[in-house]
Amino acid sequence: MSLDLAAIRAAAARIAPHVKRTPVLTNDALDSAAGAQLFFKCENLQAMGAFKARGAANAVFALTDAEAARGVVTHSSGNHGAAVARAARLRGISGIIVMPHNAPQTKIRNVESYGGKIVFCEPNLTAREAACAEIVAQTGAALVHPFDDYAVMAGQGTATLELLEQAGPLDLILCPVGGGGLLCGTAVAAKGARPGIRMVGIEPAAADDVAQSFRAKSPVSIAHADTIADGLRTNVTGQRNLPLILQHVDDIVTVSEDAIVTAMRTLWQNLKIVIEPSAAVPFAAIQSGALDVGGQRVGIILTGGNVDLDTLPWLKR
Amino acid sequence: MSLDLAAIRAAAARIAPHVKRTPVLTNDALDSAAGAQLFFKCENLQAMGAFKARGAANAVFALTDAEAARGVVTHSSGNHGAAVARAARLRGISGIIVMPHNAPQTKIRNVESYGGKIVFCEPNLTAREAACAEIVAQTGAALVHPFDDYAVMAGQGTATLELLEQAGPLDLILCPVGGGGLLCGTAVAAKGARPGIRMVGIEPAAADDVAQSFRAKSPVSIAHADTIADGLRTNVTGQRNLPLILQHVDDIVTVSEDAIVTAMRTLWQNLKIVIEPSAAVPFAAIQSGALDVGGQRVGIILTGGNVDLDTLPWLKR
Repeated sequence: MSLDLAAIRAAAARIAPHVKRTPVLTNDALDSAAGAQLFFKCENLQAMGAFKARGAANAVFALTDAEAARGVVTHSSGNHGAAVARAARLRGISGIIVMPHNAPQTKIRNVESYGGKIVFCEPNLTAREAACAEIVAQTGAALVHPFDDYAVMAGQGTATLELLEQAGPLDLILCPVGGGGLLCGTAVAAKGARPGIRMVGIEPAAADDVAQSFRAKSPVSIAHADTIADGLRTNVTGQRNLPLILQHVDDIVTVSEDAIVTAMRTLWQNLKIVIEPSAAVPFAAIQSGALDVGGQRVGIILTGGNVDLDTLPWLKR
Repeated sequence: MSLDLAAIRAAAARIAPHVKRTPVLTNDALDSAAGAQLFFKCENLQAMGAFKARGAANAVFALTDAEAARGVVTHSSGNHGAAVARAARLRGISGIIVMPHNAPQTKIRNVESYGGKIVFCEPNLTAREAACAEIVAQTGAALVHPFDDYAVMAGQGTATLELLEQAGPLDLILCPVGGGGLLCGTAVAAKGARPGIRMVGIEPAAADDVAQSFRAKSPVSIAHADTIADGLRTNVTGQRNLPLILQHVDDIVTVSEDAIVTAMRTLWQNLKIVIEPSAAVPFAAIQSGALDVGGQRVGIILTGGNVDLDTLPWLKR
């Protein structure tokens, strides 16, 4: 099994009762500044405030009843954890979320609000995976990996099917890159539905493991991804992601921390929506000039809006 | 001539090329807390970030070519000014905006960004009206009054026609009350399209001229409306508004300043959208318990999102 358009279409049908069809926003001022037509797919307006609701719902609802009865477990720095907790509650099963102890308070509260049981661990992948493995061994719970999972990727790709319906023909789709699950789902959906479309992933320069892996054509990990885009600190360590990225993605572009904060504020100001730093990363590539989109129709996945409203980054500088 | 459902339907057809059909958002957590089903009509996502785009577009595009050739003028503390400037530019005519010199910087920049010519005046209605009258006398420009104008009210009412289509049957519609133009347009649209619906206007207690006028059944003005909801400081001084309000509105409810700030933050946090204080006023009535909406399907007009992102009210307290 791999990931294809048919799997993403099946996911769309499976999760339709459990997620929102989010709006696509446009803005004349941003279009003028970019010299392009920008279509913002607002997954910050998705249930639980992030696209992760899609992948988690698809993975949880694709389980057989026997599998589901033993519950689900995942590890996540935030939005995916809330999404798995939410999907588990919707299916009426147990959901355990392994989180790093330094996860943002907003994201911890979000998981709790959906009834997820949190197990804290050290903030590194080894500790996360060990904690998950122990829970799987003890309970028989199904692991819903945040990105190295075809069902999760298929769910994430459903946002792009909607975007293509809502925005009409697009030349280019941009999304941020963290663990790579969204990028894989988005790329397979986009290239499957519109073979001529261009697909570019955007990554913080301070967490550029995917950009490095893409150029090296093999996995490169970086030790300390110190970016404000907390959703994108993950390395692409899965077995499944990098091969799909190398097959379906045209380029990976990186942006600075300053460009991310500036882009975040610009989108709040112009689109009148709350997005988290990770969601601003693709627009940062346009605004900073790192990516030339002149004359093109560009779809942009705005990934989430779970930000601490008391500590806005442009007020700290 | 007065204001009726036919005029609002005509306005909807007239302005369709010039404004957005804004999304309606729902939120499970807010519904649970309210014990009701809430449908938020997101006019903060309207062109220029406020419902005022609708009324101004209708008034400007309803002018004959001969009238339009002499330009338009208005007075406004903010969003209506930007809306008239925008509509004038779309029609290719001159737009002059009289603004109080203490208007928020965000709203001044907004008017300028649409090519409006600003004339500053003292922050009181007498000064505003005198400045407008002088410009009308000099130029022959058409006055597009911010609220005491049936064409403006008809345009504002078009948001409610959309809301009723998008949300399905509603028991109650809430909107904030400033000068009363939105309330009149909303009430006439709602009662015209769904005769059994209940219509309630919500006002800051610190600017409760409409609540007082509603009870007295004649215009009551208050001298210093010191509310954070800067869009709602206006008194209902027009000839046309109070009679329509007395005819079509079921009640006027007031809320405290603290309730407005709390509601604003709650809506940013849960809906992931940027709204200005004025837009939070109706939800403040629900959240504070000033209005009982238990078990009802409630439509709420979120009026605008033009707020200064550097001075958020919950960070000042």
